[in-house]
Amino acid sequence: MMHYSKEQLLQLNSRFRANLINSCTGYKSSNLLATKSPNGTSNLAIFNSVVHIGSNPPMLGFILRPLTVKRNTYENFKSSGYFTVNQIPSNIIKKAHETSAKYEEDISEFAKSHLTEEFMEGFQAPFVKESHIKMACRYLSEYEIKENGCLLIIGEILDIYLPKDIVNEDGWVHLDKVDTTAIIGLDGYALPKILDRFSYARPDQESHSIYHGT
Amino acid sequence: MMHYSKEQLLQLNSRFRANLINSCTGYKSSNLLATKSPNGTSNLAIFNSVVHIGSNPPMLGFILRPLTVKRNTYENFKSSGYFTVNQIPSNIIKKAHETSAKYEEDISEFAKSHLTEEFMEGFQAPFVKESHIKMACRYLSEYEIKENGCLLIIGEILDIYLPKDIVNEDGWVHLDKVDTTAIIGLDGYALPKILDRFSYARPDQESHSIYHGT
Repeated sequence: MMHYSKEQLLQLNSRFRANLINSCTGYKSSNLLATKSPNGTSNLAIFNSVVHIGSNPPMLGFILRPLTVKRNTYENFKSSGYFTVNQIPSNIIKKAHETSAKYEEDISEFAKSHLTEEFMEGFQAPFVKESHIKMACRYLSEYEIKENGCLLIIGEILDIYLPKDIVNEDGWVHLDKVDTTAIIGLDGYALPKILDRFSYARPDQESHSIYHGT
Repeated sequence: MMHYSKEQLLQLNSRFRANLINSCTGYKSSNLLATKSPNGTSNLAIFNSVVHIGSNPPMLGFILRPLTVKRNTYENFKSSGYFTVNQIPSNIIKKAHETSAKYEEDISEFAKSHLTEEFMEGFQAPFVKESHIKMACRYLSEYEIKENGCLLIIGEILDIYLPKDIVNEDGWVHLDKVDTTAIIGLDGYALPKILDRFSYARPDQESHSIYHGT
C-alpha cells in the first residue's frame, strides 16, 4: 500500500498530481455538451463531471473550471439559456476526446471532430447524432465554489431521447446496452458491464438481486 | 427513439422518474463514506455522487440530499471535521449497497454490512479495509442548491492510500486493476474495463493512444 500525505501531494509535479487526484474519486460520467453561439456557431465539448441533482423537477449539474479564460460552452448557454447533454458510446471516444482541444469560438467542434450535429423539434442547441441517450436542458443557476473558483452549473432536463428497449419497466436504464462509456481522470475511457442490481436496502434485511425482475 | 417531454417526465410515477433521471446522466462513481460520531459510533454510507473538484489543493465534492431527515454522515463530519472516501470494488457491492439502509445513529453500518473498519495513523474517521483506494478528507464547506435543497459538500483530500502498481508513471490510476465499480442510477453496479487513453487534444492535431506510454 502506497501513501501520499497532504505534503507529498502538494509537492508532486502538477501534471502527475492532476492525473492522480482526477483518478482517485472513481469513474466519471462521459458526456458531450452542445450549445449554439449567438452568431449561430455550434459548440461541442466533452465533460466528465455531469451529475444527478434531482428527479422532481429533473435536474443535472456539472462542474465548470474557473472563468479565467473564455469558455465557449459557458458563454453560449448563458446567452441562449439552453444546452444538450449527449452520452458518449464506445465507438466515438476518440472523436469525443478531440472536442477538448481549444478551438476559437467561430469554429464548430462538430466539424473538427467529425461528429454529426442533429436538431430536434426546434430546440435551439444541437444534439450529437451518434449518441444514444441525449437530453435537452435549460440553464437554471450557478454556484461558485469559492475554494478554487470552479462553478457548479445546474440545468433543468426538458426532454430525454433514448431507445425504448433499454428502459427497464421500472425506469432504470441499461446504459451498457448502448455501450455508454465511463472516464478515468482526464483522458482514460472505459466500457462498463453490469454486475447486478439490488433491492432497496432496509435495516436488518438482506438485499436481493432485482436485475432479472423484482 | 423514445421521447420524454418535460410534461411527460413530471407525470411519471415518482419511482419510475427517479430511476430514469438517475440513469440518464451516465455512470456514477462508487464510494463508501465513513465517519465517526461524537460518541464514538462509526458510520458507513454509500455515495454515488463523489466528483473531482480540484487538484491544487486536492479537493473532492459530493451531493447530499436535503436535510429534512437526520443524516448521520453529515452530522458526523460537521462535528468532527473529517471523513474518509473508499472506492467500492466488485467483490463488496452487495455489502456496500446494504449500508444505504436507514439505521439509527448508534448503530454502526460496518457491523451491519460485515465490512471491516480500519484506522490509519491516528486519523479520526475509519476506513474500509476491503477498499483498495481510500482517502482521508477534511470538511471544507457546503453550498446549498436552492432549486431543491440538496447540498454540495466540498472536502480537502489529506491522504491517499492505494496499491503502488496501479499508479501509472504519469500519475493516472488503473482503477480497473482493482475492480473499482461504477453505478447506474440508485442500485445498479457495473464493472468497467479500460478501452484506451488519448493524448492531450490540440486544435487540428489527431489525438493518439497513450495507454501503452506516450
